[in-house]
Amino acid sequence: MSVLIVGSTALDSIKTPRAENPRLLGGSASHAAVAASFFAPVKMVGIVGKDFPKRYIQLYRKHKIDLEGLQIAEGKTFHWSGEYEVNMNNRRTLETELGVFETFTPHLPRSYQNSPFVLLANIAPSLQHHVLDQMRRPKFVVADTMDLWLNIAMADLLKLIKRVDGFVLNESEARQLTKEDNLVNAAKKLHKLGPKYVIVKKGEHGAILSGPKGLFISPAYPLPHVVDPTGAGDSFVGGMMGYLSTAKGSIDSNLRRAMIYGSVVASFCCEGFGLNFTTRVTRKAIEKRVKELEALVKF
Amino acid sequence: MSVLIVGSTALDSIKTPRAENPRLLGGSASHAAVAASFFAPVKMVGIVGKDFPKRYIQLYRKHKIDLEGLQIAEGKTFHWSGEYEVNMNNRRTLETELGVFETFTPHLPRSYQNSPFVLLANIAPSLQHHVLDQMRRPKFVVADTMDLWLNIAMADLLKLIKRVDGFVLNESEARQLTKEDNLVNAAKKLHKLGPKYVIVKKGEHGAILSGPKGLFISPAYPLPHVVDPTGAGDSFVGGMMGYLSTAKGSIDSNLRRAMIYGSVVASFCCEGFGLNFTTRVTRKAIEKRVKELEALVKF
Repeated sequence: MSVLIVGSTALDSIKTPRAENPRLLGGSASHAAVAASFFAPVKMVGIVGKDFPKRYIQLYRKHKIDLEGLQIAEGKTFHWSGEYEVNMNNRRTLETELGVFETFTPHLPRSYQNSPFVLLANIAPSLQHHVLDQMRRPKFVVADTMDLWLNIAMADLLKLIKRVDGFVLNESEARQLTKEDNLVNAAKKLHKLGPKYVIVKKGEHGAILSGPKGLFISPAYPLPHVVDPTGAGDSFVGGMMGYLSTAKGSIDSNLRRAMIYGSVVASFCCEGFGLNFTTRVTRKAIEKRVKELEALVKF
Repeated sequence: MSVLIVGSTALDSIKTPRAENPRLLGGSASHAAVAASFFAPVKMVGIVGKDFPKRYIQLYRKHKIDLEGLQIAEGKTFHWSGEYEVNMNNRRTLETELGVFETFTPHLPRSYQNSPFVLLANIAPSLQHHVLDQMRRPKFVVADTMDLWLNIAMADLLKLIKRVDGFVLNESEARQLTKEDNLVNAAKKLHKLGPKYVIVKKGEHGAILSGPKGLFISPAYPLPHVVDPTGAGDSFVGGMMGYLSTAKGSIDSNLRRAMIYGSVVASFCCEGFGLNFTTRVTRKAIEKRVKELEALVKF
């Protein structure tokens, strides 16, 4: 089954202690869509400006991503620039130019409205709402977010959480939102806000799923060399939703393994700048790493 | 087979945001010995002062810990007091009174010198050396440490690492010692210093083992309520060595499961002040949590 993905489509200028790369293809929707494309047909919703490089459109096409929902508007593409510290965990935003994103309203083409799996990747909660409003009874809806929306759009976000099946956020966001340091308790509080499934991302420490079957401790693939972690979280949810949409059986019986697939795609994402490495990955390489992860946690 | 454990035997005064508990039984050897006692006979080496409460001696005895190697000296028992922050991860030392520890030289009774499994729990590396010097061809030696020794006794510690089979340290210590942020690479560098097995403790995120069979990602048992994490790392290595000493088969084939047992005892340790909770645990309760951990990582 197909996955509908809405989020940001951006140009990222990324600086790490070792290198600097301007205007890479980035944004939550780009990372999530490419990640999901290894498993399922993807329909993407986003907006770019007239300055958006043609080679990036070709790259989406190479991954068979349906671009009917990608608006190309007068103006500049959303541009983010950021810098990572030596340990590659802390980053600071140097500049954010919203460009065409400032006036973005996601319109869903008819062919998108019946998509069974919906990933509301990181983007303003009001836009995530707007996409959900246009959907016809999706089977499984997951929303991701970021600290910015907790700070400036909490009311919208809380309303959104009530409408989704799964809510994904990182460790510090979970603590900020619930005012609870302990992640087991934070997950409990998040369930009370609506979602049946809560996934807390912990970066290099993996992720935790809390759902009707209890907790699941999902490992991260141990990487000896992290080049650029930008988009790893988006790749994780994208890969997870892509795998989930094609797996036979119930969500409950597939979600754990789907997270493992998401972790693996996220690990590839970290090995290159932007989407450079992810776009060169094969399904075979993904399966190999999934097997490795299975062995890494076996006792 | 029996486990020989050397380390500190102390009185801990612990303050958390919720409570304050003076003069609890503490120290790396106490925690590790009680943890190991659930699985194997334990021989403990340490020193206490004349002020050491009799009820703590009785507590060791309840756990059938061999105390022939425990010196009772004129003077005061080593006393540590510390305070935890709200998140229970950061702590600061308020006071350290070395007392009888200042002049401690660990003497091994004859009956201790053939112990096949040796845990050099956290204590000055010079004392860890001194214990090893008295051993007759032990089968498996593991050393734990703490940041203090990296700061004031690095030369001793580096010499010690060459002499052990397994070296255990926490995440920040691994980074400090190897000057390597990435833990996979830090483990590689640590192997070059001597030990066949390197275990990096990550607190609530579990631990990583690096050995001849590659990496193992060991989960932590997810606790909804952490009362006091003091001694959790000592309980982890103690439980691990206790289990390992009684398991049939090679170290390689048992070490992963031994770490799981260590994790479980550490989780119980965190649920009470000092050793209050650990000493009330049963083997049955441990087995139950091991099964739970198995289910928590299954996908």
